[in-house]
Amino acid sequence: MRHVETGKPGGDLASFADHTRPVTIAAIAASAGVSIPTVSKVINGRSGVAADTRARVEAAINQHGYRRTAPVTRSNMMELVFDRIADMWGLEIIRGVERAARQHRVGVVLTEFGPQRNAIRYWIEDTLARRPDCLVMVAQLDTEQRQQLRARGIPVVVFDPTVELPEDVPFVGATNWAGGRSATRHLIELGHRRIAMIGGPEHVLCCRARLDGHRSALDAAGLPVESELVVHAGLTHEDGRAAALGLLRRPDPPTAIFACNDLQALGVYQAAREVGLRIPTDLSVVGFDDLPMAALVDPALTTVHQPLLEMASTATELALALGRGERTSQVRLELATTLTVRESTAPPVR
Amino acid sequence: MRHVETGKPGGDLASFADHTRPVTIAAIAASAGVSIPTVSKVINGRSGVAADTRARVEAAINQHGYRRTAPVTRSNMMELVFDRIADMWGLEIIRGVERAARQHRVGVVLTEFGPQRNAIRYWIEDTLARRPDCLVMVAQLDTEQRQQLRARGIPVVVFDPTVELPEDVPFVGATNWAGGRSATRHLIELGHRRIAMIGGPEHVLCCRARLDGHRSALDAAGLPVESELVVHAGLTHEDGRAAALGLLRRPDPPTAIFACNDLQALGVYQAAREVGLRIPTDLSVVGFDDLPMAALVDPALTTVHQPLLEMASTATELALALGRGERTSQVRLELATTLTVRESTAPPVR
Repeated sequence: MRHVETGKPGGDLASFADHTRPVTIAAIAASAGVSIPTVSKVINGRSGVAADTRARVEAAINQHGYRRTAPVTRSNMMELVFDRIADMWGLEIIRGVERAARQHRVGVVLTEFGPQRNAIRYWIEDTLARRPDCLVMVAQLDTEQRQQLRARGIPVVVFDPTVELPEDVPFVGATNWAGGRSATRHLIELGHRRIAMIGGPEHVLCCRARLDGHRSALDAAGLPVESELVVHAGLTHEDGRAAALGLLRRPDPPTAIFACNDLQALGVYQAAREVGLRIPTDLSVVGFDDLPMAALVDPALTTVHQPLLEMASTATELALALGRGERTSQVRLELATTLTVRESTAPPVR
Repeated sequence: MRHVETGKPGGDLASFADHTRPVTIAAIAASAGVSIPTVSKVINGRSGVAADTRARVEAAINQHGYRRTAPVTRSNMMELVFDRIADMWGLEIIRGVERAARQHRVGVVLTEFGPQRNAIRYWIEDTLARRPDCLVMVAQLDTEQRQQLRARGIPVVVFDPTVELPEDVPFVGATNWAGGRSATRHLIELGHRRIAMIGGPEHVLCCRARLDGHRSALDAAGLPVESELVVHAGLTHEDGRAAALGLLRRPDPPTAIFACNDLQALGVYQAAREVGLRIPTDLSVVGFDDLPMAALVDPALTTVHQPLLEMASTATELALALGRGERTSQVRLELATTLTVRESTAPPVR
């Protein structure tokens, strides 16, 4: 991705490589072969620039690292973007973002991409027109969108990333590995030896971390990681039920199941009922997330609490600080999870 | 609240009473004793007007019924305001509003007043500065806020009002009375005769309608409304549990309980377990709302489905239409509820 200048050495363009000197709009304009007002229009999200010209200017900005030196006029608006907010934990995130933003008297514009991916087509255009101070993303941006935002100096903080991010992308997540470890350690301390884990999809980063934490707890206790007791499944109630039925119908079923999230755990509840097992007497169950409903189900679910509200507030504070042009030393954060022991776990009978 | 003009009969001010002629900004300025640019500033939400002057202009506008005749520049932004979004049904509302707004490429700014009421102080100021096209309120405005919005021609649609509204306030709700009636009729058809109702707070309009629907179903079946089988309680899980314990520990307990919402119903689940009753064998339970978790609990909850997503979309479409200056024939709507029968109801044993 390094850019080697071929023309005009020593001139305006050479200064792009010199990070001690700010790159001027004039230099960007020269590089892109457009007028200074055109560059200004692109940077300020105004209309009246042809798509290919806009792309050329953005490419020049991203190549040469132009950054605004003075804070621009703030819109006192920020964007919170979800891929899907169907899951119940979305609400906690929304509340956390909204509360933090309100402290700064910043309005939160909420978007859900949803299943119709063509809705995203307009999204970036509308977002740029609103000129937000920053974005908190519970969704993935494509490379072009990231460049469009970067070209305008609009910072993006990723909430609980599902994939490995480039090192310069700020994010706020939770200590998924430590959380997974604490869940399985709790079951081991109760006396369980055959502990199954319903992992999430293999490509989802936080699920992978929870599973590795589970394995690490088994290792630390000198217990073998039995491959037949680790199954991968989607993150819904039904996925959890199906995976649990497979585990519980084995000739040597587990005495405890650690599910990758609370919805899966409730699917385990249903599966246990279907095969005639009582929780926690015959089967211990641990979830992950600590959704509000975890405390309301019967028996109340032992689960790893993910501090969604605090994570969302932290992501917002970070995004707003970056939007104000502040330099913050730490832009990649993981907040601590904590095990919440309720009524779904007990020592094994066998 | 009628305004009687005392000066300049036949002049500009008299025209205020003549609703066939639009009231001009000049007339408002004359009435408030300020300059035309000052009125313009207030209408367009710009700063630089002293608070008392602003209030005087707003009062003049509200008295004389000034309305913009041509659509103003649209901001393509709207506001969604919650008192509290802690309850799980908030998420459905958010999604419904966001989806409808996105169809029109309108950004949704989300606010939660929350427990700290002084946060509202800034809210109206910040909202007016954003110049939204319209508002959907899941919260109550005070008279001053309503007037400030009305003075700027920003329409407000109330979502599922908790109190009786003036006749000119647009709202979207659900058929709470019919829903309550269908819940109790279902229990009667199963053979229940001692049916208790945990009503919500007496001053909350939708709870009152659900209770009246319950009574109406009993009446229609020729069953007495026994006052000891109707209790009022808050709308939380714990409130439902406490109310149910009171009912179930009576010498002549009910065989079925209709709770005013799903959270209360889950409290009934817990109470039943505490006194050793099985659902639905020993006790039938019906909720109201059909939150996502209603299908996930064990046994799955029979409940009255409230079409929150559709209600929210409808409220948004209505607010946006009013914001575009469209005249809509129907601005007070109730969408139909439907009974969703699951596993928590069965014929009584006794």
